[in-house]
Amino acid sequence: MSAQWLDQIKWDDQGLVPAIAQDYRTGRILMVAWMNKEALRLTAEEGRAIYWSRSRQRLWRKGEESGHVQKLHELRLDCDSDVILLSVEQLGDIACHTGRESCFYRVLRDDKQWEVVDKVRRDPNDIYAKKA
Amino acid sequence: MSAQWLDQIKWDDQGLVPAIAQDYRTGRILMVAWMNKEALRLTAEEGRAIYWSRSRQRLWRKGEESGHVQKLHELRLDCDSDVILLSVEQLGDIACHTGRESCFYRVLRDDKQWEVVDKVRRDPNDIYAKKA
Repeated sequence: MSAQWLDQIKWDDQGLVPAIAQDYRTGRILMVAWMNKEALRLTAEEGRAIYWSRSRQRLWRKGEESGHVQKLHELRLDCDSDVILLSVEQLGDIACHTGRESCFYRVLRDDKQWEVVDKVRRDPNDIYAKKA
Repeated sequence: MSAQWLDQIKWDDQGLVPAIAQDYRTGRILMVAWMNKEALRLTAEEGRAIYWSRSRQRLWRKGEESGHVQKLHELRLDCDSDVILLSVEQLGDIACHTGRESCFYRVLRDDKQWEVVDKVRRDPNDIYAKKA
């Protein structure tokens, strides 16, 4: 049943690989999540990022609650076949659950502190309250 | 002994986190490798990417054989504190052991084949033969 392009992936012992979402215009790295075989298959099929939520142990259609869907532009695979790179259009320009553009909003400073350098674009309470 | 900024990282059950290397000029994603606490500490201290090689089970100073050192420009941490993002200057413009700029040189085509789309910049035999 399973397609060859999916079997070429070196899934880890939990059946997962890391998946990086990168903004297709700016090149900014938006987030890293995990995919299992089904998530990757559906991502290609539906043309949007679908991850495997390790905390919830279920498929996670990115944007299903927030509306911050990631429309797929390109899928890449690395030389070891164990990391996926998604080039995406980030709807709402917010990828992070904190309401920021990117999950990578902290920078290590010279004094060895992780400093928050990106601003919140939208209050998470506004993003996720809709379904409450 | 261990510094606070290192203890803030959520190391996995093997004491590792994924680390993404991104070209500081072009934004291209060059590779993904793994870091343990010592690798991350040394990366910040020495100003170059130092990973933990899972296959060799030892510290891996990127470029130690190839000369393709990654000079560190910035370190970022994601919202879950379990992925590191390195902005780097890639010496030699080659990050991949295949002699390509990036490890992400395969694209998924509409016919569901992973197609190699980037060319080899330097023959790996030339890169790694020096120490043979």
